[in-house]
Amino acid sequence: MKVAIIFGSKSDTEKMSGAAKALREFNVEYKAYVLSAHRVPEKLEETIENLENQGCECIIAGAGLAAHLPGVIASKTTIPVIGVPINAAIEGMDSLLSIVQMPKSIPVATVGINNSYNAGMLAVQMLSIKYPEIKDKLKEYRKEMKEKFIKDNEEGVEL
Amino acid sequence: MKVAIIFGSKSDTEKMSGAAKALREFNVEYKAYVLSAHRVPEKLEETIENLENQGCECIIAGAGLAAHLPGVIASKTTIPVIGVPINAAIEGMDSLLSIVQMPKSIPVATVGINNSYNAGMLAVQMLSIKYPEIKDKLKEYRKEMKEKFIKDNEEGVEL
Amino acid sequence: MKVAIIFGSKSDTEKMSGAAKALREFNVEYKAYVLSAHRVPEKLEETIENLENQGCECIIAGAGLAAHLPGVIASKTTIPVIGVPINAAIEGMDSLLSIVQMPKSIPVATVGINNSYNAGMLAVQMLSIKYPEIKDKLKEYRKEMKEKFIKDNEEGVEL
Amino acid sequence: MKVAIIFGSKSDTEKMSGAAKALREFNVEYKAYVLSAHRVPEKLEETIENLENQGCECIIAGAGLAAHLPGVIASKTTIPVIGVPINAAIEGMDSLLSIVQMPKSIPVATVGINNSYNAGMLAVQMLSIKYPEIKDKLKEYRKEMKEKFIKDNEEGVEL
Amino acid sequence: MKVAIIFGSKSDTEKMSGAAKALREFNVEYKAYVLSAHRVPEKLEETIENLENQGCECIIAGAGLAAHLPGVIASKTTIPVIGVPINAAIEGMDSLLSIVQMPKSIPVATVGINNSYNAGMLAVQMLSIKYPEIKDKLKEYRKEMKEKFIKDNEEGVEL
Amino acid sequence: MKVAIIFGSKSDTEKMSGAAKALREFNVEYKAYVLSAHRVPEKLEETIENLENQGCECIIAGAGLAAHLPGVIASKTTIPVIGVPINAAIEGMDSLLSIVQMPKSIPVATVGINNSYNAGMLAVQMLSIKYPEIKDKLKEYRKEMKEKFIKDNEEGVEL
Amino acid sequence: MKVAIIFGSKSDTEKMSGAAKALREFNVEYKAYVLSAHRVPEKLEETIENLENQGCECIIAGAGLAAHLPGVIASKTTIPVIGVPINAAIEGMDSLLSIVQMPKSIPVATVGINNSYNAGMLAVQMLSIKYPEIKDKLKEYRKEMKEKFIKDNEEGVEL
Amino acid sequence: MKVAIIFGSKSDTEKMSGAAKALREFNVEYKAYVLSAHRVPEKLEETIENLENQGCECIIAGAGLAAHLPGVIASKTTIPVIGVPINAAIEGMDSLLSIVQMPKSIPVATVGINNSYNAGMLAVQMLSIKYPEIKDKLKEYRKEMKEKFIKDNEEGVEL
Repeated sequence: MKVAIIFGSKSDTEKMSGAAKALREFNVEYKAYVLSAHRVPEKLEETIENLENQGCECIIAGAGLAAHLPGVIASKTTIPVIGVPINAAIEGMDSLLSIVQMPKSIPVATVGINNSYNAGMLAVQMLSIKYPEIKDKLKEYRKEMKEKFIKDNEEGVEL
Repeated sequence: MKVAIIFGSKSDTEKMSGAAKALREFNVEYKAYVLSAHRVPEKLEETIENLENQGCECIIAGAGLAAHLPGVIASKTTIPVIGVPINAAIEGMDSLLSIVQMPKSIPVATVGINNSYNAGMLAVQMLSIKYPEIKDKLKEYRKEMKEKFIKDNEEGVEL
Repeated sequence: MKVAIIFGSKSDTEKMSGAAKALREFNVEYKAYVLSAHRVPEKLEETIENLENQGCECIIAGAGLAAHLPGVIASKTTIPVIGVPINAAIEGMDSLLSIVQMPKSIPVATVGINNSYNAGMLAVQMLSIKYPEIKDKLKEYRKEMKEKFIKDNEEGVEL
Repeated sequence: MKVAIIFGSKSDTEKMSGAAKALREFNVEYKAYVLSAHRVPEKLEETIENLENQGCECIIAGAGLAAHLPGVIASKTTIPVIGVPINAAIEGMDSLLSIVQMPKSIPVATVGINNSYNAGMLAVQMLSIKYPEIKDKLKEYRKEMKEKFIKDNEEGVEL
Repeated sequence: MKVAIIFGSKSDTEKMSGAAKALREFNVEYKAYVLSAHRVPEKLEETIENLENQGCECIIAGAGLAAHLPGVIASKTTIPVIGVPINAAIEGMDSLLSIVQMPKSIPVATVGINNSYNAGMLAVQMLSIKYPEIKDKLKEYRKEMKEKFIKDNEEGVEL
Repeated sequence: MKVAIIFGSKSDTEKMSGAAKALREFNVEYKAYVLSAHRVPEKLEETIENLENQGCECIIAGAGLAAHLPGVIASKTTIPVIGVPINAAIEGMDSLLSIVQMPKSIPVATVGINNSYNAGMLAVQMLSIKYPEIKDKLKEYRKEMKEKFIKDNEEGVEL
Repeated sequence: MKVAIIFGSKSDTEKMSGAAKALREFNVEYKAYVLSAHRVPEKLEETIENLENQGCECIIAGAGLAAHLPGVIASKTTIPVIGVPINAAIEGMDSLLSIVQMPKSIPVATVGINNSYNAGMLAVQMLSIKYPEIKDKLKEYRKEMKEKFIKDNEEGVEL
Repeated sequence: MKVAIIFGSKSDTEKMSGAAKALREFNVEYKAYVLSAHRVPEKLEETIENLENQGCECIIAGAGLAAHLPGVIASKTTIPVIGVPINAAIEGMDSLLSIVQMPKSIPVATVGINNSYNAGMLAVQMLSIKYPEIKDKLKEYRKEMKEKFIKDNEEGVEL
């Protein structure tokens, strides 16, 4: 397992599914966990320790409201953490700011509001630093993305 | 010691001093700690445990940016936690939202941006539930506040 | 009766019901009042005086828009006041700022937008300063919360 | 005295002086009061009652942060209340929203952030409904304003 | 006719109806106009001139988006203008700021977003400066509002 | 004269000077006017009519706060109007929204906050539709901009 | 073809259709393209080059989220670019700011959120600088707009 | 060279220096480039291609205002891109949203406003996936950070 996807409530499963989708497209092994920084801090800590030991290479964490989960995880590991702000109130601005504005030394790699797919993609890009086969697939993906885009729109659009 | 004041950096000492000032006005014993949820999570945890054991009755926590400190403390104790949003960027809105928008079950009693004095006052009010002498002092304080306000302005104001 | 729950309109009953729910979970006696700072200020004042006399120990106040109710109550009593910003316009930001940004000396303990359950929890935590049995229940509650969280998620999640 | 100017702290004297300036330009009698909705609510109430009895016809109220003063005054009198949001934090947005977003039935006539001069002008316009001489002066004022503007800029501007 | 209600599009009729409702409750004569500052500026100017000549005493203007209508009217008359920000985009914040932030000398008395009823009430309060019978009615209205509020809630509320 | 630059107060001369600078770089004749939509609406209207008659081809209008000037001009002419939001309060957000959120049919071409230079550039680009020599100069300008950028940075940067 | 309308996804077709509608009303030839700055940058570049060669005189570009498309196009051509912020998250504020806040020298003429019709109108106004027949039509359009507005509202409105 | 640091103007050198500082602390080779997505797009493209060829493993890009640079780079390479929002207007909110709200498939790993040091740290963490020696150093760094924090604060703080 290379990537862990952690979020605080089963009710966010759908919003976080994009991350898994992206990882599956690149055959990157992942495992999902429902864990809360505020409700089960010890369980979270224990899980992070296990992830370190199991050689997990990237953690994706999604949270809404005062979204502490990504930052709390980041403070307990040196594995890079990707944060997904989930829109639960005020259009997700509370979550975005709670995730991205981390203090000096403990960054969280933040993606767009509700954009868990991009979190998956970013994890893939991080892994591609190490794994040439993922790097190759990424180039292929981009090429196909372009081709698909061009094909989808080759008949032009009527306005 | 009844109240602990915790903040993440010595550089916030001045901004947090209002809390101590309010507590001193009511002869409430307090102790200040510089502790960071992200840099020394274990030390923070240990301190909270000690606070629990020492009978600490209220915790004031101040933080800026993605201000997780108050919420992280709140998740590790049932002592009521008062959060002070400190203005370090975007007028303190990031800090306010990171503190006040806590998820269900783990509240942080949030006061105004940079308003650590009110955090101290709120701690005093919480303690007054238990201590009749603080309750009496609070009533006296309000009375004096009114008298002082009236006296300060008794000559009226020229506009 | 230990806690009073005050809000400005029957139409907010559902949004404020979380506060009562939390208090019932801890067997804390409460009473709800529909009272408006702007429409029946004398009635509000009278009620607050009665609450003082009846030994009320904590007041929860919810309001939307230019949410003055919690602050106005706080200015008329030394009982700690918990404010619940209710979302009636611009995502509740008007209400949040109208409640949390109180001037020096008169704090309102603010919780998240529409999060009346957390207001109830915060009241419980405040009362736990005085009442050891509530303190014990809080610890039990946290323990059960953790256990329930772990049990609910023990089968893991498929993403 | 036709207009009362009320604000919560001597430190706002300069920011509120524009209101007085506008009133003096129209020879409208006014009196300024430093009064706080939160610190001296009874004194405020008493003053409002006196204003009613003395035939005061318009009240200008300025406040910062969770600016309750204008709305609280408006709830205690039928004299029209003009609110001046004062910039004390987050660019005055907290104050603007706390003043303008009043609930149904109790309006506050809100002017721009820190724009106490416009509060004075609005008071003059309200009074002009009743007093033809003020109406005449207002028309003269507008005429002079235009003439002055044209004269000040008659030489054009070099860019 | 004492009050003119002006707005820029028939589609805002419902949102502006609150103003008329308030005026009818006080038997204040009003007339409604659909007029646009941007589409029919000459017609608007002509109408304002007629309103001046007909002794109109207060103008209520509602607009959304870059809501110039109230300010443009205010620049062309000394009749006090009340502005109603209508929510057409970004929660009405564009409209609120376009109305309330008027430059020095030309105020618009701004009420809450979509709160046209309060615009009507504010007009009534302005007129009460001149008309004692309206003043009396306002006092009666407030009294009834209180009585109704108390009656509506006399059975208390179950939470 | 091809471009008119209009703004509401001599105090904005410096902030608007960027527009003139850009126009001078392209030898586009311009004339600057200090005119206010709210203070001298008739003078503004008269000026716009003159601009129409003199064959003016583009108007740049800058304003702060409730910035109606660009939109009011746009409603009185079919000459394209470029709006410059000037930062006078809340970081210029009031001005930006008052300019850009124009209703259907009357657009204002809005540039960045305080970015009057870009307003000048945009005017140049609009004129280049008609004038091939300006089009040529624009291409030259871009080429030089690139060369200058590359030259300025050819020694690289030490971080 | 005088105007190109470019947007990043077929799913925005309806939101961008207003631009085409406005252009058709003025018989201005246009062509629509679905092109993405991020997915098919080379295709975009190639298209812009073709547009330059084909004498395209104005480009309308619509985008949501981190809306780079209009600015990226503007950096690659001297043809004036009109940007339409599309509301895909946080009420379109991300898109508005990503489009309007362009750096010095590379302006994008920004219109209101989702207001593609105004983008079409602005393109027409830009073209009217060169084409007297469009200028005439614009004057006619304004005249008809006024007449229609007056006719639509000649029976007045009941409130 | 493992990391490239790209920003749009020499004037941002100081704000971006934190990234270099973090990289130097980990002996990670980097090179800084001043390049603009809008002014020298071809040069930028060429540089990115070179970076790909030279085996660059991570790109840090900083920009203010409508900050397209990080997203444009991300669209032209599969190397992970870290974006630093620089505060040039409205507290950096324009830049933050322009960077973080990237569309599906092309993520930018966004860090806090002006927090280039965290961009450097995040690059180090990404590289640690591949390089065990960096992973070891990161663990050491965290340990030292904790020790230093504890040492700096061992005398406690007086409030």
